[in-house]
Amino acid sequence: MPQVPKDGSAEVTKGCGPLIPPLSEITRPLRQQVFDRVRAAGQIPRVQLAKELGVSPASVTTATQELMEAGLIEEVSVLREGDQGRGRPAVALGVRPDAHRVVGMKLSDREHTAVIVDFAGRLIADDTIPRRPDVMDLNSLLDATETLLDRVCAKAGLSRSDLSAVGLGVPGFVDSSSGRVFWSPVLTARDVALSSAATQRLGLPVIVDNDANLVTLAELWFGAGRRLSDFAVVTIEHGVGMGYVINHRIYRGFTGLGMELGHTKVQLDGALCRCGQRGCLEAYVADYALAREATTALNWTNKEGQSISILLESLYDHAKAGNTAARSIFRRAGRYLAVGLSNVINIFDPELIILSGERMRYDYLYANETLAEIKNLAIATGKPLPPIEIHAWGDLLWAHGAAALALSAVSEDRLLPGRELAAQ
Amino acid sequence: MPQVPKDGSAEVTKGCGPLIPPLSEITRPLRQQVFDRVRAAGQIPRVQLAKELGVSPASVTTATQELMEAGLIEEVSVLREGDQGRGRPAVALGVRPDAHRVVGMKLSDREHTAVIVDFAGRLIADDTIPRRPDVMDLNSLLDATETLLDRVCAKAGLSRSDLSAVGLGVPGFVDSSSGRVFWSPVLTARDVALSSAATQRLGLPVIVDNDANLVTLAELWFGAGRRLSDFAVVTIEHGVGMGYVINHRIYRGFTGLGMELGHTKVQLDGALCRCGQRGCLEAYVADYALAREATTALNWTNKEGQSISILLESLYDHAKAGNTAARSIFRRAGRYLAVGLSNVINIFDPELIILSGERMRYDYLYANETLAEIKNLAIATGKPLPPIEIHAWGDLLWAHGAAALALSAVSEDRLLPGRELAAQ
Repeated sequence: MPQVPKDGSAEVTKGCGPLIPPLSEITRPLRQQVFDRVRAAGQIPRVQLAKELGVSPASVTTATQELMEAGLIEEVSVLREGDQGRGRPAVALGVRPDAHRVVGMKLSDREHTAVIVDFAGRLIADDTIPRRPDVMDLNSLLDATETLLDRVCAKAGLSRSDLSAVGLGVPGFVDSSSGRVFWSPVLTARDVALSSAATQRLGLPVIVDNDANLVTLAELWFGAGRRLSDFAVVTIEHGVGMGYVINHRIYRGFTGLGMELGHTKVQLDGALCRCGQRGCLEAYVADYALAREATTALNWTNKEGQSISILLESLYDHAKAGNTAARSIFRRAGRYLAVGLSNVINIFDPELIILSGERMRYDYLYANETLAEIKNLAIATGKPLPPIEIHAWGDLLWAHGAAALALSAVSEDRLLPGRELAAQ
Repeated sequence: MPQVPKDGSAEVTKGCGPLIPPLSEITRPLRQQVFDRVRAAGQIPRVQLAKELGVSPASVTTATQELMEAGLIEEVSVLREGDQGRGRPAVALGVRPDAHRVVGMKLSDREHTAVIVDFAGRLIADDTIPRRPDVMDLNSLLDATETLLDRVCAKAGLSRSDLSAVGLGVPGFVDSSSGRVFWSPVLTARDVALSSAATQRLGLPVIVDNDANLVTLAELWFGAGRRLSDFAVVTIEHGVGMGYVINHRIYRGFTGLGMELGHTKVQLDGALCRCGQRGCLEAYVADYALAREATTALNWTNKEGQSISILLESLYDHAKAGNTAARSIFRRAGRYLAVGLSNVINIFDPELIILSGERMRYDYLYANETLAEIKNLAIATGKPLPPIEIHAWGDLLWAHGAAALALSAVSEDRLLPGRELAAQ
């Protein structure tokens, strides 16, 4: 028999115990699983849905009927292999593109970007507003979202009432389910109820999320997620972020605050992070971490308003030209990135790691030395490492992810009775 | 539009694309979900199952019918609240305890342990064989499992033919699905097909797993998992291991080799780990890491056959008596443990962390300083940290986990057509 634990905090219960309180959901309602599968597949026949979900064809028929009545999916004709125009085409299910239009917005240190997409994720319009890199108060941030919304609506020839929801991405610690931002490098205040403030200002339901989750959602809805079940997206820009897809769904942790790879500690009492702690991965790898050593390496004085981008471009040029100090900055960043990525491999054992973000055009981050270092740091099983893909996409991808966030919310709202998207 | 990635490795596809190959399973077959829910609940009425799983009562009736015909569950009578002996009792579903008997075995540096349990997890017999801490070749390891099996069968008054499966836990890098051990501190060889070798030797289906997953399975089947959906189990003994439960299921990673917390790197070019790499968490926290500094602190020569346990007991006594060097060993181990646990919090955002293993009786590992350090290293969201519970269980718990592994396999085998447990 297991011993009684020292502190009496738990005990091993065995056999058929008494009734316990209902467990939180093990699986999602079938109609939602059906919707996700249809969305991921593009087009899929009912019989294949039933097979893949392990339920009866009758259950699938009921679920698809509900989804069609809700206007979310529709029947489409597909040619069967070998049909070649003869015979009746088979009927498959697909998402109804004009069921909803949503806005995705990404706010960053450098610019604000927005897209409008339809329910199938097709781009209708986009817009970008450059900005000076500084921290905003909540009101300035809401002003920026409103200006952006008006501009992208004008481009699309749509009014706000044509839109179903807004997905809003900000860097930092965000709990998407409560809509709170606990800390963000673009906001002066901590613990801000951003979702409700933006919903009130824009007159549309606004869902917020961490920007790394946005890129992950973009990959899940429109990219790698259509073929893979378990993958990591690591973003390297002004900070280091991560999103993780488990079994075709983003995993956010129990309270929605997980996947903060950039703030995992890679050195006790190490370099100072902008989050206020020491030894965080991003304090060795992110833009600002390189920039603060770059001023030393290049013997620049840190002028007011000096752009980090220009500083890093110069650092990169010097490194390529053979400047030893500049090279050592990139080399150290690459080694710590290898620590971070090997820790992701050792913990998650992913099918694929996607490195994403504008900074990925600096090839030092995925140089051969970095990849070799990862091999030295990932557990030695004799199996090959998971592939690492570089997706050097810009802010429009992040905005696409914000749109995917809004699409998720719209479909969850329509699929889960009792959940309502709050709007004024 | 998202830019085309530099390396052309992926592209953003949008809208309704062509049919893609079937996704790997998003959800498990309903009858398996039903079984898991019955097992976790102990007793549960059909109507509640349907509600929790979000499917029709008819679907649940079909699934439970299949499970009853397979002899895995049975109807049990429960009193409804307020019935007080009057009226008809309600009918609930429960696991059929005598459906199967399985063996769970844990092999460790120090001893081998086995239990026999019934399908409801109730203990029938247990046995333990102490051993000298050395590495074994495969044949010696198989000899040990066979001796252990015979002894625990004799105690239970059962023969091998009364048993359905054996769960076998070893430390190291184990892929449970293929039954391969890529590296283990108890085995001389690397990449050993342990499952098939043990299946052949014992004449029973043998399922192998990493020992940290066993403790997690024990918590999932018989402990914390009956009330929680997402939790971490971190084991500290001869090494540092982790198991993670997401949505009531153990998450093993894409190829079954994830959750190697003990081999995440907490220091570039750091202390040498017994896995052969440098800077692994366990190289700062595990028994052997403390032991190699203890010989310095206590000015002991490292005698042949000297027990690590005796060395660590002495170190602990010296630390309590005020020996500065001994204290600094524990203090450093505690700080690195704080790094490891805060990284688990920052990445997974768990509902609970369970610290498990025999070494947890040394309170330095969860001293106030360690907990305070975790607070300094976990992201500052203003929310409280997840609770950390200490379960100082012995090897019998691990063996119980091995039994849970065998029970999982037996039920998966009976529930998933096409999967067969291989036995001679």
